[in-house]
Amino acid sequence: MNIEAYLAERRAMVEAALEHALGASEGTPPRLLEAMRYAVFSGGKRVRPILALMACEAAPAEPVRALPFACALEFIHTYSLVHDDLPAMDDDDLRRGRPTVHVVFGEALAILAGDALLTEAFRVAANGVEAARVEPARALAIVGALATAAGAAGLVGGQVADLEAEGVAANLALVESIHRRKTAALIAAAVEAGAIAGGASDARRSALGAYGHALGLAFQVADDVMDAAAPTAMTGKRTGRDAEHGKATYPAVLGIDGARRAARELLVRCLAAIAPLGAPAEPLRVLATFVVERAG
Amino acid sequence: MNIEAYLAERRAMVEAALEHALGASEGTPPRLLEAMRYAVFSGGKRVRPILALMACEAAPAEPVRALPFACALEFIHTYSLVHDDLPAMDDDDLRRGRPTVHVVFGEALAILAGDALLTEAFRVAANGVEAARVEPARALAIVGALATAAGAAGLVGGQVADLEAEGVAANLALVESIHRRKTAALIAAAVEAGAIAGGASDARRSALGAYGHALGLAFQVADDVMDAAAPTAMTGKRTGRDAEHGKATYPAVLGIDGARRAARELLVRCLAAIAPLGAPAEPLRVLATFVVERAG
Repeated sequence: MNIEAYLAERRAMVEAALEHALGASEGTPPRLLEAMRYAVFSGGKRVRPILALMACEAAPAEPVRALPFACALEFIHTYSLVHDDLPAMDDDDLRRGRPTVHVVFGEALAILAGDALLTEAFRVAANGVEAARVEPARALAIVGALATAAGAAGLVGGQVADLEAEGVAANLALVESIHRRKTAALIAAAVEAGAIAGGASDARRSALGAYGHALGLAFQVADDVMDAAAPTAMTGKRTGRDAEHGKATYPAVLGIDGARRAARELLVRCLAAIAPLGAPAEPLRVLATFVVERAG
Repeated sequence: MNIEAYLAERRAMVEAALEHALGASEGTPPRLLEAMRYAVFSGGKRVRPILALMACEAAPAEPVRALPFACALEFIHTYSLVHDDLPAMDDDDLRRGRPTVHVVFGEALAILAGDALLTEAFRVAANGVEAARVEPARALAIVGALATAAGAAGLVGGQVADLEAEGVAANLALVESIHRRKTAALIAAAVEAGAIAGGASDARRSALGAYGHALGLAFQVADDVMDAAAPTAMTGKRTGRDAEHGKATYPAVLGIDGARRAARELLVRCLAAIAPLGAPAEPLRVLATFVVERAG
């Protein structure tokens, strides 16, 4: 398969859907919409939404069925970045090479733009279902899965644990417990959402679930390695910000080489999980490989 | 009807459901759960969840069907208070007679506890449906209605408009446009959620909708009057905080007496809307009357 052409096509689907979901709407203050759009259209790679489309194809089904949930995933991911960057949290002024939302729009609007994106995620998921021809019961299961991944025992819980771990002597169990919630849960939910939207059989859904969980951790390990080793020009963030904050990261407990090895082991688990799924899962294989290889 | 006994029973249903939804859960950091519980169990009147139960009864149906959505409404309402109180927003240190969440738990945890409550709202709504025996299509419609009321063109949009209006010369149209989104939308959504969960006919649903919209505004007018006129001992908030902030309020544009008159006119609209619904709508009548009368 021509992966570049494939990815370009999927990304275009996602961008068009996000654009549609974030069009002008009566009642939305223009400045709020501007802040939401600034956060969403900032050169993100759209990994989570594309993963949902890929998992839907591997179900197998038409990827468009997963599109409302793909948008929801990107909104949730974006809100979490906006809030993480706030002065009271990680206090980051640079993201993807641009000033962060609170630097441009002020703290109040950054909090509210994050709140709005989180809320709109569930609106888009609930309201887009009819167009995507997903059965209500299935859509409701996806809404539940997204909320669970994003909630107190998922993304938000992981961020709290991450803040609590700052400056604490880290170990692998702690690092995993943070990142399972902070990153892996939403990545896994993206794969799960796509699988459910595509009507995957129990066996295929379970294979995709195993892939999603391994990929979620691989993704975070690779991200930590990038933060520790790659220059700002490549990441759009400052190099070594994690170490500066005393963050619990994989390189901090395993060293850079150990973290790279862990990422490669997770890649093996990803590929093994979906080996039985054949050709429709090929994009998922390519993506997992890419995620791990960018960490070197 | 014995309204005191009725309300006590409904409140007990809501408290038990909230308690269940906010029990210890694997993966939720204890300090996060503590902050969420501090915010939720702080002596709130549970107006929105009880409204949802009342509307469900007026559908007519067993109130328990609306219980997952009742919890979701209270979580959304609570998150909005936690974020509104933040230093970057209204900077309030007192709510219901107690220090606000960020004063007790710090700013980062207050932001995250709000985020978690907002997310858990949708988890509870999506996952509680089976127990409440609500059809998935109907539950999905409610999730959409809650997200719309809470989102960029609803609650969050209203809060942005409210902050933008601080110190600006207010007029009635501006005040209404703010409060229609900031308060009335979620109150109306509470009534709508109950009506849909209870399987109301189109005619009953439309009557309940009209009631919800009028009650939402009546509620805010009464709240503004209370803020301007009632002592802290009665409201648990500092008297005159709105005026201090140059907030766009009903008393600011109509005077206290004009605002009280507006509240009574809205009460008439509430009662007219549900006049055809007979006895099952009696609690809704009593509630609307109580809301307006507490403003004097």
